[in-house]
Amino acid sequence: MSAASPSFLTWQRGSCIGYFARSQAGCLDAVLTLFDYLDSGNGYKIRLLLALLNRPYRWVEVDIIAGATRVPEFLAKNPNGRIPTLQLEDGTYLAESNAILWYLGEGTRFVPPEPLGRAQVLQWMFFEQYSHEPYVATPRFIKRHLPTDSPRRAELSMRLEQGRAALAVMEAHLAARHYFVGERYTIADVALYAYTHVAPEGGLELGPYPHLRAWLARVAAEPGHVPLTRRPP
Amino acid sequence: MSAASPSFLTWQRGSCIGYFARSQAGCLDAVLTLFDYLDSGNGYKIRLLLALLNRPYRWVEVDIIAGATRVPEFLAKNPNGRIPTLQLEDGTYLAESNAILWYLGEGTRFVPPEPLGRAQVLQWMFFEQYSHEPYVATPRFIKRHLPTDSPRRAELSMRLEQGRAALAVMEAHLAARHYFVGERYTIADVALYAYTHVAPEGGLELGPYPHLRAWLARVAAEPGHVPLTRRPP
Repeated sequence: MSAASPSFLTWQRGSCIGYFARSQAGCLDAVLTLFDYLDSGNGYKIRLLLALLNRPYRWVEVDIIAGATRVPEFLAKNPNGRIPTLQLEDGTYLAESNAILWYLGEGTRFVPPEPLGRAQVLQWMFFEQYSHEPYVATPRFIKRHLPTDSPRRAELSMRLEQGRAALAVMEAHLAARHYFVGERYTIADVALYAYTHVAPEGGLELGPYPHLRAWLARVAAEPGHVPLTRRPP
Repeated sequence: MSAASPSFLTWQRGSCIGYFARSQAGCLDAVLTLFDYLDSGNGYKIRLLLALLNRPYRWVEVDIIAGATRVPEFLAKNPNGRIPTLQLEDGTYLAESNAILWYLGEGTRFVPPEPLGRAQVLQWMFFEQYSHEPYVATPRFIKRHLPTDSPRRAELSMRLEQGRAALAVMEAHLAARHYFVGERYTIADVALYAYTHVAPEGGLELGPYPHLRAWLARVAAEPGHVPLTRRPP
């Protein structure tokens, strides 16, 4: 939010109407607006891809802990009441982190051009949402954001067991590969990196998964990488 | 599996080596092989799209109730141990029902050509796997396939509550639309139809959702439609 922002326009959050973001010179250009929450891995996926693509965007933090995604103003943007939600330049809202990754990534080097590679990228992204996120991300959410006496702590042991199963599937796949699909960095890696690299914060230690740890290091070393904790400009 | 099969080749399941299916004249043509379980809505998605596309395929039922997806022979096909799994003509295995829909649907009338429409199809398919399937399909699985004294019955009330939330999101979207994306029948409709039309079998009555019921009737009236209970030829 400072004049030292690395993007080519410097935004002042919330200062312009609709999807027009404000540069130092005024409301000039229609840009992407990302509704997000800094600690969300699902939101981080989008921030990471936008950084890799070097695309400027307006960032609006929504306090999910205070229920700000369940109020009428936000539900008008995404009726399913979740971040990340991306507002496109024409005002359209797009939801679901992995659908947003596809929208931003298609036509770039982060989505393969060939049919099988594309389907394999989607296979790993659906794996991420169905077999990984509820068991790797949710324990982290429970531990970091719910009270220590929350009844949801009873879910932890079942979730962590399933989380270890998901990590084992990834470890076996990565034993003979550098990236998930086609030996190149794709949005499947972005989607899986987001919550895997912070899995220990939810109670999943990564010691037993050496190939997975090597892959995490490889992703973090990619040009343009940004950490989850970096607040967008 | 009879000589009266409507597809142009009649398969005898398991009679040919690898991914070559057997026609009446012998092992002739490489075809798709779908590993599936008849009562699975996720598997039904693929059967439905293949019927709409009028594509022949070999069908292999895997007894998920008896744990046949968790044995080494099946895990070699899909390390995540789930059906549906599709074996392509070249022997490659593809998993995740919605990734398979994309693979089969891309380039046909069931996947829009324009970037936003494609992303919206994916948005609804990720909604289906994250916010719908665990709460609409899983209660049906618990009720139909687990013993009446299963401890998993304790999950039902939470799951059905979330299921009603998912159906309400769909109902609101369909209030002004005939199909989920772009006013045409796409794989997003196929993905959402699969478990929604049998939601009452899990305890979710559809009475409160008139637009959703009209959409279900619309999908079922599409040319080439097949019911979930129809065993593939």
